[in-house]
Amino acid sequence: MTDNYSIINGQFIKNSEATVLISDLALQRGYGIFDFFVSVKGKPVFLEDHLDRFYNSVSIMRLAPIPDRGELKKLVYKLIELNNMPDSGIRITVTGGYSPDGYGLAAANVLITQNVFVYDRASFTKGTSLVTQHYQRQLSQVKTIDYLQAVYLQPFIKENNADDVLYHNNGELRECPRANFFLISKDNEIVTPDSDVLWGVNRKKILSFGEFGAKATSVKLSDVETAKEAFITSTTKIVLPVLAINGKRIGNGKPGELTTKLFEKLYALRMG
Amino acid sequence: MTDNYSIINGQFIKNSEATVLISDLALQRGYGIFDFFVSVKGKPVFLEDHLDRFYNSVSIMRLAPIPDRGELKKLVYKLIELNNMPDSGIRITVTGGYSPDGYGLAAANVLITQNVFVYDRASFTKGTSLVTQHYQRQLSQVKTIDYLQAVYLQPFIKENNADDVLYHNNGELRECPRANFFLISKDNEIVTPDSDVLWGVNRKKILSFGEFGAKATSVKLSDVETAKEAFITSTTKIVLPVLAINGKRIGNGKPGELTTKLFEKLYALRMG
Repeated sequence: MTDNYSIINGQFIKNSEATVLISDLALQRGYGIFDFFVSVKGKPVFLEDHLDRFYNSVSIMRLAPIPDRGELKKLVYKLIELNNMPDSGIRITVTGGYSPDGYGLAAANVLITQNVFVYDRASFTKGTSLVTQHYQRQLSQVKTIDYLQAVYLQPFIKENNADDVLYHNNGELRECPRANFFLISKDNEIVTPDSDVLWGVNRKKILSFGEFGAKATSVKLSDVETAKEAFITSTTKIVLPVLAINGKRIGNGKPGELTTKLFEKLYALRMG
Repeated sequence: MTDNYSIINGQFIKNSEATVLISDLALQRGYGIFDFFVSVKGKPVFLEDHLDRFYNSVSIMRLAPIPDRGELKKLVYKLIELNNMPDSGIRITVTGGYSPDGYGLAAANVLITQNVFVYDRASFTKGTSLVTQHYQRQLSQVKTIDYLQAVYLQPFIKENNADDVLYHNNGELRECPRANFFLISKDNEIVTPDSDVLWGVNRKKILSFGEFGAKATSVKLSDVETAKEAFITSTTKIVLPVLAINGKRIGNGKPGELTTKLFEKLYALRMG
């Protein structure tokens, strides 16, 4: 395997040597945020949207100092070039730093990593199946590193013959660990939960497509029963049809018409 | 500052060089657990209780492989000797390891660190003050590294002129981020919340003291209004009198009689 470069606090370092001290507040107290985007043919996709969210996460979590937008972009482009990896997933992680008392915030550590990623259209046709679970992400508008529940629930997902978990808070639908959730209601409305979820970039794009009239509103677990279509959105999945929830088929069990249209539109935007 | 040793996966390494790769699942997904105990005059205090809880955390979180109890104790004693640090706090952290896909569990990383710690009796007299906040720790019986909320709430605590936060779940008292909570009710009962809290070792000791009749039960936020005394327990604080909650004095604003008796008993046990 190629030993690519990562960036730690502005320094380019081979992955095999890319380390942080174990006093880092992410290891000590799970305190950190990140953002993740893809590059296609060397160009980061929806970069400004991701950086908007990134700086929002950083600000809410009081992480500092952080390179400004211009510096950060330079680093990202330099990394793509150095790794010679035009098609990739790029993650910028910021931790609470090397805390002297293992609790209070110190100077942030800023880590940028890159891995090969090429979207496979076959995944769209295959679709996905979900199992629901009561859970509310903490600090939901911040893209924190807290995926404790998601990793913990992996055996539960398998036992239920599902591919991923869909969280709800006492019957109010929320999101998947790494994706937003949409459904097409019995009245043909495209809806996604409006509160206590991460504001995904692909979710935001879909909500901005005037011609589809998608809206963020309260979506209930019980709305799944009458949904005509359902899908999840994320940076790696774009629009992924949800073909079953809790073992029950959604629609005719195939990617729906509106889901397909939304996918095509987002895919085209992404490919530039 | 002395560059003491830590242990990473059985290897003794100077703190200045004690690192993990940034692919570690604690950094990527906040996935890890720990336990923490003190040593007094070279002897770990309540070690078996801590190791019981440690292996329970490890098991629930499916972390493996982990040294067995005998090996782990040997490492701990060796560390105390090597660092020549008889009075200390010792932390054993286990993370989800170097996950190839940044999501699934890999071989666990086991980190043992030691820092000077000597209990200061003056802290008992000084006591502490708390501010309450709605929050429920996830996987509450596991001592996870998730202190996102605790670190995030530091400014909130300061603004409220408090020393720490006391969590409640819709009015049901829970715990502080790093301590269990007890109060002496208007009927002179020593009570501590029974559900959805970490099972602290000092909490367990107090519940085991037959002569005090302390019990784990439902404790409400509203019970604070009529409490005669209140205190928190932890490995570093032993028994720490709570003299005010939300700016309102508890009892006469001084360490109470029962609180003092419990402290003396636990302190004596700890000192051997």
